[in-house]
Amino acid sequence: MPELRREPVSGRWVIIATERATRPTDYKTNHQIIKSSFCPFCEGNEGKTPPEILAYRNSGTEANTRGWRVRVVPNKFPALQIEGEENKRGEGIYVMMSGIGAHEVIIESPRHIQSITALDNRNIEEVLFCYRDRLIDLKKDKRFVYGLLFKNVGFSAGASLEHTHSQLIVTPIVPQLVENEMESAKIFYTQRGRCLFCDMIQQETDTNSRIIISADNFVAFAPFASRFPFETWILPKKHESHFEKLQNSEIDELANVLKSTLVKLEIALDFPPYNYIIHSAPFNINESEYFHWHIEIIPRLTNVAGFEWGTGFYINHTPPEQAAEILRNAAGNHE
Amino acid sequence: MPELRREPVSGRWVIIATERATRPTDYKTNHQIIKSSFCPFCEGNEGKTPPEILAYRNSGTEANTRGWRVRVVPNKFPALQIEGEENKRGEGIYVMMSGIGAHEVIIESPRHIQSITALDNRNIEEVLFCYRDRLIDLKKDKRFVYGLLFKNVGFSAGASLEHTHSQLIVTPIVPQLVENEMESAKIFYTQRGRCLFCDMIQQETDTNSRIIISADNFVAFAPFASRFPFETWILPKKHESHFEKLQNSEIDELANVLKSTLVKLEIALDFPPYNYIIHSAPFNINESEYFHWHIEIIPRLTNVAGFEWGTGFYINHTPPEQAAEILRNAAGNHE
Repeated sequence: MPELRREPVSGRWVIIATERATRPTDYKTNHQIIKSSFCPFCEGNEGKTPPEILAYRNSGTEANTRGWRVRVVPNKFPALQIEGEENKRGEGIYVMMSGIGAHEVIIESPRHIQSITALDNRNIEEVLFCYRDRLIDLKKDKRFVYGLLFKNVGFSAGASLEHTHSQLIVTPIVPQLVENEMESAKIFYTQRGRCLFCDMIQQETDTNSRIIISADNFVAFAPFASRFPFETWILPKKHESHFEKLQNSEIDELANVLKSTLVKLEIALDFPPYNYIIHSAPFNINESEYFHWHIEIIPRLTNVAGFEWGTGFYINHTPPEQAAEILRNAAGNHE
Repeated sequence: MPELRREPVSGRWVIIATERATRPTDYKTNHQIIKSSFCPFCEGNEGKTPPEILAYRNSGTEANTRGWRVRVVPNKFPALQIEGEENKRGEGIYVMMSGIGAHEVIIESPRHIQSITALDNRNIEEVLFCYRDRLIDLKKDKRFVYGLLFKNVGFSAGASLEHTHSQLIVTPIVPQLVENEMESAKIFYTQRGRCLFCDMIQQETDTNSRIIISADNFVAFAPFASRFPFETWILPKKHESHFEKLQNSEIDELANVLKSTLVKLEIALDFPPYNYIIHSAPFNINESEYFHWHIEIIPRLTNVAGFEWGTGFYINHTPPEQAAEILRNAAGNHE
């Protein structure tokens, strides 16, 4: 069973996971994505993953066989385990608890495709529906308070398999970074009576120097204080705290904006490694007037170094205004 | 002039630096440490760096010529600039200020050595003296409130030159991560009347499962909630908030413990990329009963992925108890 430990100085939590081998030599050799002729995510290899939790399938096909379009399975090497109680306890100055939670993989295509942008819009919509369905299902479990959907593309962004996929990790505590964002948004709301993110969308729209795509319901822009070169955020224009409340009528546009934004990054930066992360409000808050869900896309072009680890400060050599201009002009325009 | 911008959601600051080229292609090609026959840090090439700020030299040698043992120069591509006023200002919901500060490079040897562990102890002591001298000098400038000393080793840890060196960045605001650590340590002190770090040293010594080196005045251990495999912290046993108050009588032992710890990591992990960072109290606090300076060493064996960026949670596959055992048994024992 993995263990969650709280670092008493910073307050951040760490998952001490021991399911994978951990000899020093494992780190030495593990220097790139394993490229083998066998891919457990490809259609026909359903038996090589744990049994599916959810799949959108062609009618008449059976679970864990061919015929799916999007498929969700438990991670074979889960960071957190679904069974058990939290068992929070102290040991002198330290606090720890059992590593319970969920760790799932969303396999976005039965074909061995490496980028989600190679999928057609309808397929990307199903991926987004899948994200929503899994959050709605997991938040029923009262042990869990937060769900993080994310995608790692490329070895230096933490991917270990190239077949296009995303992941969902559900945790029994609200992560510190999310707590901080919520707190900060709450202070803004208390002081000004408005949502920080709604104000941000307004100001970005007025300024117009960092906008990459502006559609009816979604906007993509380079944030004012981008940590990373070409960092891009996508936000719904209408206030909504939880991703899982996304309406059916909005999903096609979100799929379109997400794909267009990623295509622009791929063109401008020659298929960079990247992460995207969906920031949504915690499960234990029903609705928040001050938090606003959004997607953060982080191209991984530079290495985080000692200064960043020591301060939480970031150094970015590409002003977001310049990044936005380059991305606006790259193809992949919103249809 | 670089610009400091505050990200309104997370509260973190970002340095938007534009001194280096920033075309997308610069990121594409910049995939490893530039290995050329020419090294600007080697003895004889003093004219290829900005003029030295400080050097420990053999008697009779002149500034910016041969004959130095440790040499400090301004970074040729500084993240922050020494001249100017802070000029803090708002723009709607955003806050920004001029990127003033210092960015210096400590060249640790006149020879083209790639690891500080190849230096003899006396040389490492001089590096530490140099760290102290530069902090003492820069904290006289009332515009600056924080100094971060750090080392990047290896491309994936952010190094761009292989010649052994460290860096010092001095900032006009206290970084968020430092603020958080100070706040957390203060709460502990208020509640328990003791320094969190002093208590940690006591508990680690009693438990003894995570200790790597215990010397008279310094201890090296794997922290209870290590974010990264083989993460190691070095702390002075006697309470002290500021690194720059290090006594002459302690420097030889610190040099010894630092070198021994790094040698152990190099042996166990086959010369991994790593960062070390000196966490010290801000300049604008004279002395703190609750903060305790320390060195954090982070081997860069794994890639930070979407989950970490999205939550501030870390997943570590090597329990610190196991890492400490491996490092205790690796050579490089404290003399």
